Amino acid sequence: MEKNIIISSRIRLARNIDGQFFTDKIDNKSAISLLSDVFNSLGDDFTCLKTKEISNEDKESYIEKHLISKDLLDHANISGVALSEDSSVSIMVNEEDHIRLQCILDGLNLKKAYDIINDIDTELSSNLNYAFDKKLGYITACPGNLGTGMRASVMMFLPALTMTNNIGKVANSIGKMGLCIRGAYGEGTGALGDLYQISNQSTLGKSEVEIIQIVESTVLKVVDLEKEARERLMEIKGDEIYDNAMRAYGILTNCYKLSSREFLNYVSTLKLGIGVGVIKVIDEKIVNDLFSSVMPATLNKLAGRILSEEDRDKYRAQYVNEILKDTKI
Amino acid sequence: MEKNIIISSRIRLARNIDGQFFTDKIDNKSAISLLSDVFNSLGDDFTCLKTKEISNEDKESYIEKHLISKDLLDHANISGVALSEDSSVSIMVNEEDHIRLQCILDGLNLKKAYDIINDIDTELSSNLNYAFDKKLGYITACPGNLGTGMRASVMMFLPALTMTNNIGKVANSIGKMGLCIRGAYGEGTGALGDLYQISNQSTLGKSEVEIIQIVESTVLKVVDLEKEARERLMEIKGDEIYDNAMRAYGILTNCYKLSSREFLNYVSTLKLGIGVGVIKVIDEKIVNDLFSSVMPATLNKLAGRILSEEDRDKYRAQYVNEILKDTKI
Repeated sequence: MEKNIIISSRIRLARNIDGQFFTDKIDNKSAISLLSDVFNSLGDDFTCLKTKEISNEDKESYIEKHLISKDLLDHANISGVALSEDSSVSIMVNEEDHIRLQCILDGLNLKKAYDIINDIDTELSSNLNYAFDKKLGYITACPGNLGTGMRASVMMFLPALTMTNNIGKVANSIGKMGLCIRGAYGEGTGALGDLYQISNQSTLGKSEVEIIQIVESTVLKVVDLEKEARERLMEIKGDEIYDNAMRAYGILTNCYKLSSREFLNYVSTLKLGIGVGVIKVIDEKIVNDLFSSVMPATLNKLAGRILSEEDRDKYRAQYVNEILKDTKI
Repeated sequence: MEKNIIISSRIRLARNIDGQFFTDKIDNKSAISLLSDVFNSLGDDFTCLKTKEISNEDKESYIEKHLISKDLLDHANISGVALSEDSSVSIMVNEEDHIRLQCILDGLNLKKAYDIINDIDTELSSNLNYAFDKKLGYITACPGNLGTGMRASVMMFLPALTMTNNIGKVANSIGKMGLCIRGAYGEGTGALGDLYQISNQSTLGKSEVEIIQIVESTVLKVVDLEKEARERLMEIKGDEIYDNAMRAYGILTNCYKLSSREFLNYVSTLKLGIGVGVIKVIDEKIVNDLFSSVMPATLNKLAGRILSEEDRDKYRAQYVNEILKDTKI
């Protein structure tokens, strides 16, 4: 069931070059030279792109996939990104910090993600002179990232804790351990799709390995809480959960229009059915991969043109119809 | 499109035997002899059943299919029903009137239904002494049925006139012609499934053929109004109608539980999609036949046991899943 509850793991490191102003104050020449230095220090496995050379469609699509940030676009003249072939690793240059290294992997994989990103970081550090203080650790543009400069986060699917109104309780108890939980989509309107991100808040005073251990063990505790909540729900209204999941499947495989909000709701209902075992699918990854495939810019890329909102809802529906049609066993 | 809008036609005749009290006052012996007389006057094509010999399950199922009435059950000791092999004709004896002859056919078929029922009526009248007054026509227990004793009614599917709030207008204009329209299901809560019955109110002063002509021409006018309303709806929100119909199909073919109210709503949405041509089915009769198949008692008969409400909703869902699954082209 972990596969159903834990969607993906992400490690991000913030690094800056010693003796240079932070991105907000750096002069263009130094910034561009810094960008070259980073790109040149990376192996052939990376596709290095200057932000200003990326098409608008790709930019939006990369943002949706969390491969780049809006901050990177704000420094479009001097910034760039290096992407690994499978896009699991992205290295942004001249974002808020000079360098932001990130690795996203499916499931609970913080250690592996850290190992991958740590290797690249070690490689880079041999060519670049990182700003590092023996007492404070890595120096970052925002004091909140000082120390390890690391953010370890895990995307979780928590429908039962949401339905039973227990997310607040979870937030309080993990807050005491220096972690936080927040909705992965649409923070203002509650967590759409019952998707949440759990991550460390403080980067100071603990080693990378310790932070990863705390996040992982907390995630596993939340998995247990979600499992318990699901068991209770199944006892009280198992038929309803099955019925709702089947209806969601029926809608997702037949609808002619589908907004992203509806998509998130129905996929959540379907995923809960998969999670509690009443619905069987060939591979749940097919369902999880939909989250990024049906976002607006990614749909534009798939369609090969800029879609109006109405056309996008139709294109999303058609895409989801096709993908899910033969996924249920 | 008529096939989509006009579900079925029904002719009912009320007859009484001269020199006998009406059913409410008749003594048991005379009533039972009257029952025998009618059964003996019918050909071998009919299955003749005494009400008290019909099982409870069959009774409820016959009521749902409009083959017998609750009134017949109120006189269970003396009443009975004769059913034709395909159940299109039912002849109730010792209901409110001594004899009630009824024929239900698919589509707009009042004339044919009348011909069938008229032949049987003529046959019966040669053996039985009908109460008939030259001035008033056939004498009936309720004065509202005096004259021809005939009720001609047509079941119609009017979703567009319902959505555009035009049923009231239709009711007013057909009221002036001595006809009335009412919801076929759940009269108190509006017409469930957008199904309505149009029938003559007065049975006096016009011949059977004239009444049938008025009902048929009115039905065809309502068909035109419904068609126009659909055309306007399709112009304004064709995509939505298609989307809703596809979602309804997805739910009907996948749900695990389905209340009869939900069934009527979703089938209405699906039928509108079929009616406007955006959804194609092998044979719409398969969809129309569901209306009677998924009623509680009929489901009990199908299941071979008395189902609880919860089990019935599951059984209904399963039945509808199966029937509709391969119906869409």
